[in-house]
Amino acid sequence: VTTAIGIDLGGTKILAVLVRDGAVEAVAKRDTPREGPPAVLEALVAVARELGPDDLGCVGVGAPGPVVPGTGRVGPATNLPGWDRPIDVSTPVAAALGVPTELENDANAAAYGEHQLGAGAGSHDMLAVWLGTGVGGGLVLGGRLWRGRGLAGEIGHVVVHPGGRRCGCGGLGHLEAYAGRAAMEREARRRHADGRATRLVEIAGEKRMKSSVFAKALAAGDEVAAELVGEAVEAVGAAVGNAALLVDLDRVVIGGGLGERLGQPFIDRVVTAAGRRLDGSGLQIVPAQIGDEAGALGAALLAVDRYPR
Amino acid sequence: VTTAIGIDLGGTKILAVLVRDGAVEAVAKRDTPREGPPAVLEALVAVARELGPDDLGCVGVGAPGPVVPGTGRVGPATNLPGWDRPIDVSTPVAAALGVPTELENDANAAAYGEHQLGAGAGSHDMLAVWLGTGVGGGLVLGGRLWRGRGLAGEIGHVVVHPGGRRCGCGGLGHLEAYAGRAAMEREARRRHADGRATRLVEIAGEKRMKSSVFAKALAAGDEVAAELVGEAVEAVGAAVGNAALLVDLDRVVIGGGLGERLGQPFIDRVVTAAGRRLDGSGLQIVPAQIGDEAGALGAALLAVDRYPR
Repeated sequence: VTTAIGIDLGGTKILAVLVRDGAVEAVAKRDTPREGPPAVLEALVAVARELGPDDLGCVGVGAPGPVVPGTGRVGPATNLPGWDRPIDVSTPVAAALGVPTELENDANAAAYGEHQLGAGAGSHDMLAVWLGTGVGGGLVLGGRLWRGRGLAGEIGHVVVHPGGRRCGCGGLGHLEAYAGRAAMEREARRRHADGRATRLVEIAGEKRMKSSVFAKALAAGDEVAAELVGEAVEAVGAAVGNAALLVDLDRVVIGGGLGERLGQPFIDRVVTAAGRRLDGSGLQIVPAQIGDEAGALGAALLAVDRYPR
Repeated sequence: VTTAIGIDLGGTKILAVLVRDGAVEAVAKRDTPREGPPAVLEALVAVARELGPDDLGCVGVGAPGPVVPGTGRVGPATNLPGWDRPIDVSTPVAAALGVPTELENDANAAAYGEHQLGAGAGSHDMLAVWLGTGVGGGLVLGGRLWRGRGLAGEIGHVVVHPGGRRCGCGGLGHLEAYAGRAAMEREARRRHADGRATRLVEIAGEKRMKSSVFAKALAAGDEVAAELVGEAVEAVGAAVGNAALLVDLDRVVIGGGLGERLGQPFIDRVVTAAGRRLDGSGLQIVPAQIGDEAGALGAALLAVDRYPR
């Protein structure tokens, strides 16, 4: 029996799960402190202690930034205040909790969670695509998380339209500029400012245009919402199809807020957009199954792989 | 000491090398028979017998079509007359020569050759891109050829311009439609027919527009040649950059007739086109080194890996 805690460190919340023999037995949450890295590290330790079983074997942490494999450090993390450089997470957490601690990029950890216990189960070579505020991804090859030098799976910044829409990173035509919620919101407000009436702005008002806003406007037949989601479908289809072709994937899992909210009809359109070139490849494109806990679960499972009893 | 023969089965010629301890000791060639698969299989055996050392350990064959790993069969192969279905190559060649025979896709075999003894030496995760009549590729991950289910490395059919120029396969906007010699020739003749004067057609006349024709027209300042090569650069840069980002490659090797003919200045432009998003990734984009023998050499080395003494 291996007992592990997995923690997903997000920009707004920290979510921890207690995992025993591959099943989630308890969950704990708290808001992510805004006071900088030391407060965040304390919160990671505190949330683990809250779950704290007597037989804890190891801890896994998924964090929102680049992780160079084997260093235990993550950063810079633009979603975490003051986290402007690589910061060691594994050492202080392991020292405080007295068990070995594994650190992984959050998108990678969630991909591994879906592979082991979700929509990727049974697949050999899988890509997960997370359509959230931005677009992230994680690659599992030969049943193992594929890290490269720490940057693998970064599908949000593949070019889908050369010279196209500007991405938050400054590049042109990246997938994230078409299929990330924040970029879609920017584009919706731009079209609105150009004189297009749209339910997207009516519903959201001054507030953040959440995935549910896109879903509602789409269901109401809003033209701008239909255009933006259509452009997202084409972009995701092109990027996912290209990845599948290059690596010969057998499964692509699509999740994140927008992916979950738009659901199977969205996935069906992505399959069509990915194209005939994949006929006969055996590729399956499916929705994610685990939801919010995928990252924490995946981090726990990676820790168990690394530090088996 | 392992002695192997590697054979590259091409649409017009068969090239065989005798490899001893990783060095090419002899080369043999012949035209590819046009009379169908049995004649081709006989020619493979004959060219191996021509080189035939007393201590032959194994044979590797690279062939121009899809190879499902472990089956010894390749096909359909559109460049080989009558090769309209998967045909067993390994069994008859092994039976005739009395040594185990490994079969691999030709683009994959050449990628492995460059990885082991050419421009990919020392890299961990590499993509080779072959800019020939069409565009092929091969992926080496963790130092080993990555086959997937037999289709991996097919970068020629990734979409670089959604809805763009029609590819020979019928798809729209594929890399091969912009950077394959045959597609570039079709586009040059189309622009010429539309009234654009171009040295490309002047030099080639009715004959095939070879890579050297593109190089000459480009050197002479021809506008259509500059446009077509510029579009090829952008397409290769986008596709290669996307692949590097997704898998976190450390090296991309660019070869094939057009790659070799246009050389380092072309590679330098591809690096720029691949973009800033790869800064800091440690990726190197370099020209292929081995030339025509890469496929035969790679096939021999794959056979040695599979059937070590």
